[in-house]
Amino acid sequence: MQHSVSSQHALDQAIALSPAGDDTFIGHTSPAYANMVGLFGGIIAATLLNAVMKHPARLGEPVSQTVHYAAPVADGEFTVTARAMRTNRSTQHWLVELRQDEQVAAYATAVTGLRRDTWSATDASFPAVPPANSIEPTPPLSFAVWTKRYEMRFVEGGPHDQPGAEYPSRTTVWLRDQPPRALDFPSLASLCDAFFPRIFLRRQRRAPIGTVVLTTFFHVDAGQLRTLGSHHVLGVARGLHYGKGFFDQSAEIWSADSVMLASSHQMVYFKE
Amino acid sequence: MQHSVSSQHALDQAIALSPAGDDTFIGHTSPAYANMVGLFGGIIAATLLNAVMKHPARLGEPVSQTVHYAAPVADGEFTVTARAMRTNRSTQHWLVELRQDEQVAAYATAVTGLRRDTWSATDASFPAVPPANSIEPTPPLSFAVWTKRYEMRFVEGGPHDQPGAEYPSRTTVWLRDQPPRALDFPSLASLCDAFFPRIFLRRQRRAPIGTVVLTTFFHVDAGQLRTLGSHHVLGVARGLHYGKGFFDQSAEIWSADSVMLASSHQMVYFKE
Repeated sequence: MQHSVSSQHALDQAIALSPAGDDTFIGHTSPAYANMVGLFGGIIAATLLNAVMKHPARLGEPVSQTVHYAAPVADGEFTVTARAMRTNRSTQHWLVELRQDEQVAAYATAVTGLRRDTWSATDASFPAVPPANSIEPTPPLSFAVWTKRYEMRFVEGGPHDQPGAEYPSRTTVWLRDQPPRALDFPSLASLCDAFFPRIFLRRQRRAPIGTVVLTTFFHVDAGQLRTLGSHHVLGVARGLHYGKGFFDQSAEIWSADSVMLASSHQMVYFKE
Repeated sequence: MQHSVSSQHALDQAIALSPAGDDTFIGHTSPAYANMVGLFGGIIAATLLNAVMKHPARLGEPVSQTVHYAAPVADGEFTVTARAMRTNRSTQHWLVELRQDEQVAAYATAVTGLRRDTWSATDASFPAVPPANSIEPTPPLSFAVWTKRYEMRFVEGGPHDQPGAEYPSRTTVWLRDQPPRALDFPSLASLCDAFFPRIFLRRQRRAPIGTVVLTTFFHVDAGQLRTLGSHHVLGVARGLHYGKGFFDQSAEIWSADSVMLASSHQMVYFKE
């Protein structure tokens, strides 16, 4: 089936990669996912994961991804190389590099693996929340274009809320792509970064920040993701510690029927 | 000051690296940190971080590390290469590879950075626990040699305990190197992996498992670590989700006076 560019979802346009020889792809930044400086980190994660998804030697489905945001990605073209560092019977370990002008601007490692039915349990708790459609969406933030690409319905810890008493950096939010799009691994990878920096909520002010590294663990297979379609997912984020110029924040993404889809952890630089 | 090999702590022997040209070091596996199969993952993390610590071009101190356990490390010699992928004004991004017979057995990425005094806060909670010396150490486990290298005093979730009612995969344990050794970044990196797989506690039985990837965030600088000497640290570990052949577990390492030293997250393969 042929799609014209204009019929594609903004996310698919943003993460599109053209094959350019062994292990190599060409991509282009998308203004639709612009951040205050450079690109939204989530879309960089999705683009690097997409290189693994499109690689002809891929074994299995994403199990984990770690993204290093080494420098801002400048507007324009970039090259992505994806290389299997080691292939085992049921798992494969990857290194993916995004370059502009011969310099690495971002890179990622990933594990893919064959997912099999096994014993299953969830120890983390799905929070008690009102349904997505009972909460009004929050308008996008003018200073971050990428926030237009997500529908966000905040249960607690929204950008205009005071820190909560129980856990001062916690946000609970219904999320989906805007316009709605069926969930897959690249869009799930991007969603894991669709939380405001915890320090903005915690200190009730903006300040210079930048994620330096983000690790996401995927808990479901492609078949499970397909059943979710474009329904809202629930995101929960919290900070653990802030100090000496860096803080970490952890996020969970759940389906509306309380299946943990992904858990994600990032370290963020901050000033002052 | 000269040390004979025999006067060195077992951890220093295990992570020792000899320079072997640009970006390259030679190391040797240590039977003192043997695991059921191959080497204890914590000592692999410490060895890969040590290559960054010893690299003449290093900027600042460890902020994060992600280790891929791509294949078992065989007894004997290995080569480690550490390369700065990008160097900024205050941060640096690394790739470290451990090879045996030309094949990558493990690799890591890391961020180092200049740590500065900034605003500081901790949102995670230091648990209410009895002092380390009021709890008897648990004897090492016969099937995992590396457990002899740690003094472990379990508050809850020990290897012979039932799962807790409040959070069934949680362990709270006072830890230190055995024999005691002053804490530094490599030993802290190793401690982050010194927890039994959550699934053993959760299911009350052993089964084939293997960590595929581990990410650790460091929250303190070298000066803060030095003040801790060889005192016990408190470890807290819990699982989030188990299914489709993998589970994740998260750990926190705290000083006895409730400073968060590191937070760590790993994804583990399991069978059945």
